[in-house]
Amino acid sequence: MRLFMAPQLNPARDTGWRRTWFDIIHRHDTPPSRNFDLLLVAAIVASIGVVMLDSVERLHQRYAGLFYMVEWAFTLLFTAEYLLRIAVVKRPLRYMLSVWGVIDLLAILPTYLSLVVPGAQSLLAVRVMRILRLFRILKLTRYVEESGILLQALWRSRRKILVFLFSVLTIVTVAGALMYVIEGPRNGFTSIPTSMYWAIVTMATVGFGDIVPQTVLGRFVTSLLILTGYSIIAVPTGIYTAELASSLRQSEDEARRFDQRGCPECGLEGHSRDSRHCRSCGHRLPDPA
Amino acid sequence: MRLFMAPQLNPARDTGWRRTWFDIIHRHDTPPSRNFDLLLVAAIVASIGVVMLDSVERLHQRYAGLFYMVEWAFTLLFTAEYLLRIAVVKRPLRYMLSVWGVIDLLAILPTYLSLVVPGAQSLLAVRVMRILRLFRILKLTRYVEESGILLQALWRSRRKILVFLFSVLTIVTVAGALMYVIEGPRNGFTSIPTSMYWAIVTMATVGFGDIVPQTVLGRFVTSLLILTGYSIIAVPTGIYTAELASSLRQSEDEARRFDQRGCPECGLEGHSRDSRHCRSCGHRLPDPA
Amino acid sequence: MRLFMAPQLNPARDTGWRRTWFDIIHRHDTPPSRNFDLLLVAAIVASIGVVMLDSVERLHQRYAGLFYMVEWAFTLLFTAEYLLRIAVVKRPLRYMLSVWGVIDLLAILPTYLSLVVPGAQSLLAVRVMRILRLFRILKLTRYVEESGILLQALWRSRRKILVFLFSVLTIVTVAGALMYVIEGPRNGFTSIPTSMYWAIVTMATVGFGDIVPQTVLGRFVTSLLILTGYSIIAVPTGIYTAELASSLRQSEDEARRFDQRGCPECGLEGHSRDSRHCRSCGHRLPDPA
Amino acid sequence: MRLFMAPQLNPARDTGWRRTWFDIIHRHDTPPSRNFDLLLVAAIVASIGVVMLDSVERLHQRYAGLFYMVEWAFTLLFTAEYLLRIAVVKRPLRYMLSVWGVIDLLAILPTYLSLVVPGAQSLLAVRVMRILRLFRILKLTRYVEESGILLQALWRSRRKILVFLFSVLTIVTVAGALMYVIEGPRNGFTSIPTSMYWAIVTMATVGFGDIVPQTVLGRFVTSLLILTGYSIIAVPTGIYTAELASSLRQSEDEARRFDQRGCPECGLEGHSRDSRHCRSCGHRLPDPA
Repeated sequence: MRLFMAPQLNPARDTGWRRTWFDIIHRHDTPPSRNFDLLLVAAIVASIGVVMLDSVERLHQRYAGLFYMVEWAFTLLFTAEYLLRIAVVKRPLRYMLSVWGVIDLLAILPTYLSLVVPGAQSLLAVRVMRILRLFRILKLTRYVEESGILLQALWRSRRKILVFLFSVLTIVTVAGALMYVIEGPRNGFTSIPTSMYWAIVTMATVGFGDIVPQTVLGRFVTSLLILTGYSIIAVPTGIYTAELASSLRQSEDEARRFDQRGCPECGLEGHSRDSRHCRSCGHRLPDPA
Repeated sequence: MRLFMAPQLNPARDTGWRRTWFDIIHRHDTPPSRNFDLLLVAAIVASIGVVMLDSVERLHQRYAGLFYMVEWAFTLLFTAEYLLRIAVVKRPLRYMLSVWGVIDLLAILPTYLSLVVPGAQSLLAVRVMRILRLFRILKLTRYVEESGILLQALWRSRRKILVFLFSVLTIVTVAGALMYVIEGPRNGFTSIPTSMYWAIVTMATVGFGDIVPQTVLGRFVTSLLILTGYSIIAVPTGIYTAELASSLRQSEDEARRFDQRGCPECGLEGHSRDSRHCRSCGHRLPDPA
Repeated sequence: MRLFMAPQLNPARDTGWRRTWFDIIHRHDTPPSRNFDLLLVAAIVASIGVVMLDSVERLHQRYAGLFYMVEWAFTLLFTAEYLLRIAVVKRPLRYMLSVWGVIDLLAILPTYLSLVVPGAQSLLAVRVMRILRLFRILKLTRYVEESGILLQALWRSRRKILVFLFSVLTIVTVAGALMYVIEGPRNGFTSIPTSMYWAIVTMATVGFGDIVPQTVLGRFVTSLLILTGYSIIAVPTGIYTAELASSLRQSEDEARRFDQRGCPECGLEGHSRDSRHCRSCGHRLPDPA
Repeated sequence: MRLFMAPQLNPARDTGWRRTWFDIIHRHDTPPSRNFDLLLVAAIVASIGVVMLDSVERLHQRYAGLFYMVEWAFTLLFTAEYLLRIAVVKRPLRYMLSVWGVIDLLAILPTYLSLVVPGAQSLLAVRVMRILRLFRILKLTRYVEESGILLQALWRSRRKILVFLFSVLTIVTVAGALMYVIEGPRNGFTSIPTSMYWAIVTMATVGFGDIVPQTVLGRFVTSLLILTGYSIIAVPTGIYTAELASSLRQSEDEARRFDQRGCPECGLEGHSRDSRHCRSCGHRLPDPA
């Protein structure tokens, strides 16, 4: 949960251009810093768009030169931003080794690599990882609180979900081996790993249809597997919903239950709204607001 | 939430045919207005049925003339209704620019356009948008309260759902780019947008099967993507269920909520609204407010 | 909820064979009536098994004669039971017109019809409807209470689910018409009804893959449709879970909240467990058990 | 719930090598026993990995000899462990007939059988059942409590889920027979069992696409079946979530449950456990029990 550190703010630093740019990059409540954020979001989205369009064969054949130029323009822009971030933070190395620093570097590295390594063309697709940079901006909005609640509930249910995933993996392994024996390579179940891939695709109700059981016994086992998957899809949903409901209920309960009064005598807080005397020392409480 | 305005009622208007038709159209508790509503629902459903049947090649070849005539009959009927609505409301322009006014216009426009524009034949399918007009009638029934609760819970969870959708889009983008690199155009992943389309189809457990991974690594990534999708499908369900349960619980709580009276003798609070004596000391309680 | 009436018990009836058989058929707590129930379940399951096996071409070619004989044996058995039921109940016509009476008749009718109507062979598949008869036996077990809770929650959420289904149908209609225009008969979207069938298959995340979008725009609309379906699958789950949780909580609350004491003075019941005085007249309550 | 017995601990046994090995195998808090557990997990995972790789045709052709040797090494290791377990427990037969004993035996039997029975090659896939042995180790971790809560909620909702599964089976049977009649063997619905397999695949939203309806009526019934499946997938989720939420709420309630003390002065009950004075009149409360 604490993987993503806020960059070190350095208020006592020199007040020259570094201070100015530190504020532009790391504050988000002044007009210049807001413009910087907006520009960054636009550049990220646009550069991802270019990568996507460039991967379409027909467009690549016609606009390859243009895409190449635009890509370099974005890369230079992101490089300048990366160097600027290194220049203004107090501990550059710490930033470079942080999760955000690595993501920032990954956004520019593939383009430079494509100059050196010849076959790195396909590596260029890594550039869409730039989308992860958007999460830094997201963190500044009011949505961060919402995602905080969602992540907190996920975090609290992590062990239950791991137990669930382990059970799913066991069922998948057993079902995969079973179907490999029953159907065999003749019907597309060429190996146990392939069968397990099929079992995951089937149990999670995706059902591509590239591999399908042909024998009566195979179809019977498939039906059992599907009904199992259909029934236990309830489990992660149940886990998560119960945790989330519990979170929401707690915050409601707290808002409605405990008032802000502290005991004038002993300072104890956390009284019920209908309390008129401190539950610890018995002193009279002030009336609730 | 307030996009759909109720049309301006104008009680001090002239009491002639305008007043009569305004009541027929905008009231829903008199026999003529009820019949108008029923007729409208029947006409909308029937006209959509004609559009559907007309799109079936075999039926179109045999009954094209009949369908054409019926369509024009419905269009003239809806045109008359549209003009009538404009005539009776106080501010015609406001109605015409409202959401309902635009939907009403869309219900008749395509047929007229097909006279002018030659290739507008396929545009005729827009006529099924008439189904949206049914929601106006639905608003008048007791179902509106139910849908109100559902929409309210959706509205309250909108931010959490947006955060969720943004996370899904990120996973889809990264998985799409990854699969494009791994599988490549050779196996149907012809471009990153195509790969992203495949990732959405897969992660949401639809699984058409028109594009499927062929390599071992591709199948492994697919399995991870599916398990991720299978696990986080819990999130929107959890969000919505928790909000809805919270809504329902609040209304329950309110129904049985205790009143504000404290016992004059012992000060105990938290009595039921129908209590007349303190449940602890038996002293007479003041009447509830 | 009250569609399925219990057959009229007639205690003052003659005590001859009718009374005996009425008890065997309609009671379920004596050895003969239990054996009757078990025999009926076995006969129903076996007769459905025969219908299923008979539909397998290979088995039909070899054992058609055997299956024919067994089917007639079961039909005669069920006919005898049907006549017996008519004979022992007080109001035969009322039974015959009840839901259970119609289901009982449907279990034997197709076999007799196959004698008269020549092409009724395929109608024989209607015989699997006999499975519905099992629900009558299910009603007698302790599972009936469980299914009662499930049905009650379904019943209470029926309006919300109808609103949901109507919204789904609207989305399906609009998406179907849109895809018919975008993809057209060339790509398998041969008519609007076909497109709507595809939209249902897609939105509900089934995804057969027999019809798939080929154009870029079509795939984009499909992605939107899938994400919508993926998000709103939460709605019926949320509705049902919230209602069910509310049901379970109420019964828990009731069990834990209200005790059995009535006020000795005014007879009022429904006091909290911690009440020592009647909340209506203020009289001292007896101590809770 | 009590199928998996803990092996009989025998503290008063001889203190020789048996005692030492019993501790190593059955205790999990000493360095040797921890190492034993880790070694066992590693051996199980590795041996399953070998089975999987061996099933890949290409790898089998190149490394068949190596895989054969490694498999025998693991089999001998597991055999030694099995004999050791028999040797150290107090009642060897009871262990051998317990669920864990049978699973342990199944882990080694197929390899020995392959020596005797010639065609048992495919039986070797049974060896992946060794994955079940991992659950014994899982039982020792802190995850056991989590899985306990999940299993408890599953157990409590077992009857509701059985009712649900029976209803699903009824719908599947009726829909299967219906589609067999409507579509027939011509369109792939070759028999009622095949149709039922298709109905399960469709209703659970898997949708392989190997069998798809072709007729208009068939597609209409399919749409109904899908919408039904889409709506009632809420039921197991609802059941499970409600039970799980109820479990979590109970433990919360207990944690903050009020004690049984009444105020000696005013009789008010419902104080927090840490209250020392009545929250209404301020009188000293007796110490909590």
